[in-house]
Amino acid sequence: MSADSTGSATAAERASTPATPAQRGARALAGGDPVRVAIVGATGYVGAELIRLLALHPHAAIAGLIGRERQGDPLAHIHPHLATRDLRVFDTVPEDAEAVFLALPHGVAAQRVDEFLSRGQTVIDLGPDFRLRDPADYATWYHFDHPRPELLETAVYGLPELHRAELLAAGRRPGAIVGSPGCYATTTILALAPLARAGLLADVVVDAKSGVSGAGRDPKADLHFGEVNESVKAYGAFTHRHIGEIEQELRGLSPVPDANPGAAGVDFLPHLVPMTRGILSACHVRTTRPVSQAELDQLYADAYAGEAFVSVVATPPATKHVTGSNEFRVWAKADERTGRVLAIGVLDNLVKGAAGQAIQAFNVLHGLPESAGLLQLPLAP
Amino acid sequence: MSADSTGSATAAERASTPATPAQRGARALAGGDPVRVAIVGATGYVGAELIRLLALHPHAAIAGLIGRERQGDPLAHIHPHLATRDLRVFDTVPEDAEAVFLALPHGVAAQRVDEFLSRGQTVIDLGPDFRLRDPADYATWYHFDHPRPELLETAVYGLPELHRAELLAAGRRPGAIVGSPGCYATTTILALAPLARAGLLADVVVDAKSGVSGAGRDPKADLHFGEVNESVKAYGAFTHRHIGEIEQELRGLSPVPDANPGAAGVDFLPHLVPMTRGILSACHVRTTRPVSQAELDQLYADAYAGEAFVSVVATPPATKHVTGSNEFRVWAKADERTGRVLAIGVLDNLVKGAAGQAIQAFNVLHGLPESAGLLQLPLAP
Amino acid sequence: MSADSTGSATAAERASTPATPAQRGARALAGGDPVRVAIVGATGYVGAELIRLLALHPHAAIAGLIGRERQGDPLAHIHPHLATRDLRVFDTVPEDAEAVFLALPHGVAAQRVDEFLSRGQTVIDLGPDFRLRDPADYATWYHFDHPRPELLETAVYGLPELHRAELLAAGRRPGAIVGSPGCYATTTILALAPLARAGLLADVVVDAKSGVSGAGRDPKADLHFGEVNESVKAYGAFTHRHIGEIEQELRGLSPVPDANPGAAGVDFLPHLVPMTRGILSACHVRTTRPVSQAELDQLYADAYAGEAFVSVVATPPATKHVTGSNEFRVWAKADERTGRVLAIGVLDNLVKGAAGQAIQAFNVLHGLPESAGLLQLPLAP
Amino acid sequence: MSADSTGSATAAERASTPATPAQRGARALAGGDPVRVAIVGATGYVGAELIRLLALHPHAAIAGLIGRERQGDPLAHIHPHLATRDLRVFDTVPEDAEAVFLALPHGVAAQRVDEFLSRGQTVIDLGPDFRLRDPADYATWYHFDHPRPELLETAVYGLPELHRAELLAAGRRPGAIVGSPGCYATTTILALAPLARAGLLADVVVDAKSGVSGAGRDPKADLHFGEVNESVKAYGAFTHRHIGEIEQELRGLSPVPDANPGAAGVDFLPHLVPMTRGILSACHVRTTRPVSQAELDQLYADAYAGEAFVSVVATPPATKHVTGSNEFRVWAKADERTGRVLAIGVLDNLVKGAAGQAIQAFNVLHGLPESAGLLQLPLAP
Repeated sequence: MSADSTGSATAAERASTPATPAQRGARALAGGDPVRVAIVGATGYVGAELIRLLALHPHAAIAGLIGRERQGDPLAHIHPHLATRDLRVFDTVPEDAEAVFLALPHGVAAQRVDEFLSRGQTVIDLGPDFRLRDPADYATWYHFDHPRPELLETAVYGLPELHRAELLAAGRRPGAIVGSPGCYATTTILALAPLARAGLLADVVVDAKSGVSGAGRDPKADLHFGEVNESVKAYGAFTHRHIGEIEQELRGLSPVPDANPGAAGVDFLPHLVPMTRGILSACHVRTTRPVSQAELDQLYADAYAGEAFVSVVATPPATKHVTGSNEFRVWAKADERTGRVLAIGVLDNLVKGAAGQAIQAFNVLHGLPESAGLLQLPLAP
Repeated sequence: MSADSTGSATAAERASTPATPAQRGARALAGGDPVRVAIVGATGYVGAELIRLLALHPHAAIAGLIGRERQGDPLAHIHPHLATRDLRVFDTVPEDAEAVFLALPHGVAAQRVDEFLSRGQTVIDLGPDFRLRDPADYATWYHFDHPRPELLETAVYGLPELHRAELLAAGRRPGAIVGSPGCYATTTILALAPLARAGLLADVVVDAKSGVSGAGRDPKADLHFGEVNESVKAYGAFTHRHIGEIEQELRGLSPVPDANPGAAGVDFLPHLVPMTRGILSACHVRTTRPVSQAELDQLYADAYAGEAFVSVVATPPATKHVTGSNEFRVWAKADERTGRVLAIGVLDNLVKGAAGQAIQAFNVLHGLPESAGLLQLPLAP
Repeated sequence: MSADSTGSATAAERASTPATPAQRGARALAGGDPVRVAIVGATGYVGAELIRLLALHPHAAIAGLIGRERQGDPLAHIHPHLATRDLRVFDTVPEDAEAVFLALPHGVAAQRVDEFLSRGQTVIDLGPDFRLRDPADYATWYHFDHPRPELLETAVYGLPELHRAELLAAGRRPGAIVGSPGCYATTTILALAPLARAGLLADVVVDAKSGVSGAGRDPKADLHFGEVNESVKAYGAFTHRHIGEIEQELRGLSPVPDANPGAAGVDFLPHLVPMTRGILSACHVRTTRPVSQAELDQLYADAYAGEAFVSVVATPPATKHVTGSNEFRVWAKADERTGRVLAIGVLDNLVKGAAGQAIQAFNVLHGLPESAGLLQLPLAP
Repeated sequence: MSADSTGSATAAERASTPATPAQRGARALAGGDPVRVAIVGATGYVGAELIRLLALHPHAAIAGLIGRERQGDPLAHIHPHLATRDLRVFDTVPEDAEAVFLALPHGVAAQRVDEFLSRGQTVIDLGPDFRLRDPADYATWYHFDHPRPELLETAVYGLPELHRAELLAAGRRPGAIVGSPGCYATTTILALAPLARAGLLADVVVDAKSGVSGAGRDPKADLHFGEVNESVKAYGAFTHRHIGEIEQELRGLSPVPDANPGAAGVDFLPHLVPMTRGILSACHVRTTRPVSQAELDQLYADAYAGEAFVSVVATPPATKHVTGSNEFRVWAKADERTGRVLAIGVLDNLVKGAAGQAIQAFNVLHGLPESAGLLQLPLAP
């Protein structure tokens, strides 16, 4: 039995299951059965974070944890920090799950998606398989042919701050697919979106720094403590896969479609720094015309007014300011001397950069309060 | 205005304020005004952690944050990670606070306690001023004469797992004082309590390791990153102040009062390790008689059955298993070769070792659910 | 007695002291008395590193360690790791020192320089007071009027890889002053020098990351372990003082004097990362014309052929590859997609970024083998 | 070609190779060919450290680096920090090597030792295969039957501070085998030796803390940065393999042979702490009779007078005080209140705990200056 105490649905309940995420969310909000969710890929870092947050979600219940070749392994053996939750991991997705969160290597979700859709399960994919709109981009950035290119048209890029209306619309249809954004992509897109929307991006250099958890949990030589500690290095120069998402979204925001000059050819360089969580993207921008600090302040204030998880801050943010929370913070400044604009964004790569953002999109899709299950404050020091 | 949106009480509400913590808690539980709490010493690490947890407590409302010489400073300037809470720090305790959490240097709380008691405010002191029962112990371990020794009799040592009945009793009287335990003391006492209660402690060596946040937030040469990082050192050998608490509590648990041989002369050695949060106490015990693993398992299982925040675990726990949570985990093992027993306990020094434990005691005192506001799961990796 | 066993010079020796650094070095090489050096500012991190290296220098002897208000304090109390060297710190510079290394706050060295020059002591200043050629630059970047602007003409920027001939020339005159480069400046200038010399810099964004030791040893709130650990943040945006040096040197390398377009308006952004040592500068460059990888490889190979402390490497370097050594490593790559060039340099900020580089310049100045005292291999992991 | 520029010996040289380590060392000291050494297991952390130190050893030359299935791989690919040494790694041990350092998993050295002895090569084994005198101890602590038990009689436990005379004696015979001590064992034995020799050990609890590099370089789940960082945990309780060495040596030091009560049943508990290098052993001792601080000071001063690599210090040492050096530091203190003695020792596990100590023994064996190649000062911060 892989579920929390809410248990699996009876046949009668399943028969009466509403057809769309929105209907299902409405029932949960009205005091009915919480939405039954499954986590596929529950044994990794992102899986753990989904469990941590969903276990306390007021309108969702964990209906299944799924990991390859797991036959009821206690969660305590896999994620000792979550040992107080009496959960087990199996190798099959329960049929009565209503939404499945997928934390899988790239290419796998696209191959398995029919299995979930055929059961009427909503898919929130935390991998890249449904993030890009143009199938050709998969060849460019991931070196594979997408097996289900026709699904890319309707899948929603799950960044609620930019695609909330699409998520709501998708929640009114059965068979929704959400492609949850990458961690670097979220940090970078949110840091640059107000400039992109104003058509200001002329030349964009993004220099990003990430904690190690973004590279996953599998032991590797370059993630060994002795290699990472007391060291900084760049990696993936010119070829990091998140460039595809970043350029797609910045182009999409451009007032002149497909013509945002800076959106083609973003220079993106990620670094590994000796910490576990956190991403900082420093975006160095040459603008298409001079921008004053006052205009900059206004652009960012307008862009993020009313957003529960975005703060425009007055001093350069540190990654530690958001650890463990779903917050994104951004600081933008014009440099009179060089004429450039600098925008710095931070988030926790496992929360707003992965599990938290996926839950945020899940909430919007189901018509639940957007911050349900995501109210934890950051943990510092 | 230093309070959350719950606001301050009207004159009418204050007039009708129940006289005891238990009555006040009952009203909050029944849907009435949450218990109004103030945090004195809000600018340090423990203060921040109290804010983090109390801001989301379902039955408490922050009525005031207090810091020396603060005149309405925004929380964002003091604890950037908590910037999304629109709170300010002042230098006076609001009169309408019903309970005050004190995170002050030793000696200060004892001097100021009358100010709070005179207003009928419950005192939960996170410093050492109300932890020890024998006034002479203050001279021994803190080198000061306690200014209000008569209060030490009724103050409760706020370790709910061992003093729950006393906390409940104190909640039925006005003027309750809780002396919330030290971080090392909690780790060590909970690791040894089942052995102490069984009269098994013959000789006790406690070798403890702590993250740096336990030493507070003030910049000091030996807390500088360059000094701490990539280094381990012992400190406070033979004289650490928590020894007083540890011996008091272990003696108190002894079946033959004041006769537990190991409780006198605990050899306690703390170390600073290069991490921010977490304490691990390795307790090496010679027992008064041979103990089998089966007996040991039974002793620990019995001692902590039903405890929400204590887990007896099957493999040696890591501090990372409990980061950010109010959990305490313990592992106990008999070594046939040497005849010793080893008990290892871990907790987060700022939560179960400080703010979380104080809130847990606050909950018990007020008759609230013991885990209210403390349900966060640990944050790992 | 503050000196190593080599002891102070006799009156006879002093009388016969050669007049120039070159003569003095020649005598040491010929088996005579090693060059007598004093370290002013011996109590900080850079001071410690100078001691570590000079204590084992084959042709130099420590004649004095100097710290404010120190009256013979044992080194063991100040730098415990160097306790095996039986040295003491005093508050006056010995008259018989022949070269003084100054590790002082900016502005102090310029005020005190006459004291050293009047005794015929060579000055190697590790602060900024003699790095900039144009006195106006001190007003711009350091907000002070240089008290001895006439000295700036003859002072040598102590980057041997670019100013070796000037150092040798200065060694043939008495009264030499070396302004040893800043840590960020060294990393950035050496990473970009081959491009600057070829006139290729059109637009330069430098995104740098540093360990904490670069910020010095004084306890400060933002250098507290709890603040630094598990966090990355940018600081000093647009105004970091090393920008002055970087632009001066890149301009100086330009084939068309003062016309290197990228050298004006370098966009330099430093970050603090949770490690003690190491700097990485990622330099994102738009070139004045397209550059092939082959040309790039040739430019870097030519620029650094024969340099003992510079390696052009085939994969992006990590700061850990050079810890504790005087090495600088650089990797340069052309990105066909965006048309930019990326150059990444790493060094240990306390060695090649401070003490090691100053000793390297000292060696050149005195005609000693350039790597004397600097042969340690990097320490990893 | 796997060797440094010193090159391999000619046939003539080999013919005239002296028969014993002492003769060979004497020739090197007299200005002859340096001693030709090979490092078997050159690809791990201990191997790297042997290369770092031996590459600059004034009387030794690296004749070969050996790693499984390596066919001339450049050192730069294996240990990037050592890339400036133009060395390669092969899979066979050169015949003309005169001494071989073995950094191999337990059991392997014992199987391969004949290969080296048959060529007249001196063996310095950094693994455990030649540390224990009693073959039965291998069954107890390593669960294997030693294949060459007869060699255990003549092998020397390579702790020069305790076995210098034996090392010198072994250097006068061909076919010397040195079993270089374990890292924890060195720290603990040197911290306790003065007490053991005085017959004072009644009851011994050793609580040790180690950096991660002691666990080797192979990627493993529990050495992943995300698991180690911000965490402390105990491991190997009751069964750590170094207990065998520790008890053997403490027994050997006892004034009443085999009767030192504390030497049987040492309670040894190691911990993994989030740092790369360093071991601290806190030894909590009940003595056989009361010991004053003055006696303690005298015991330690006498034991280590004249030792180049041991310091008895006046305040508790930190591991950072010895990083990168061959130093061992110890602090011993009597606690009047509890009647116990506390001895705390620190070292760098890869230097005095492994490579440095092996070279120190190599030096003694060959009659070279004991600190040859080991003069680096510690690297801090």
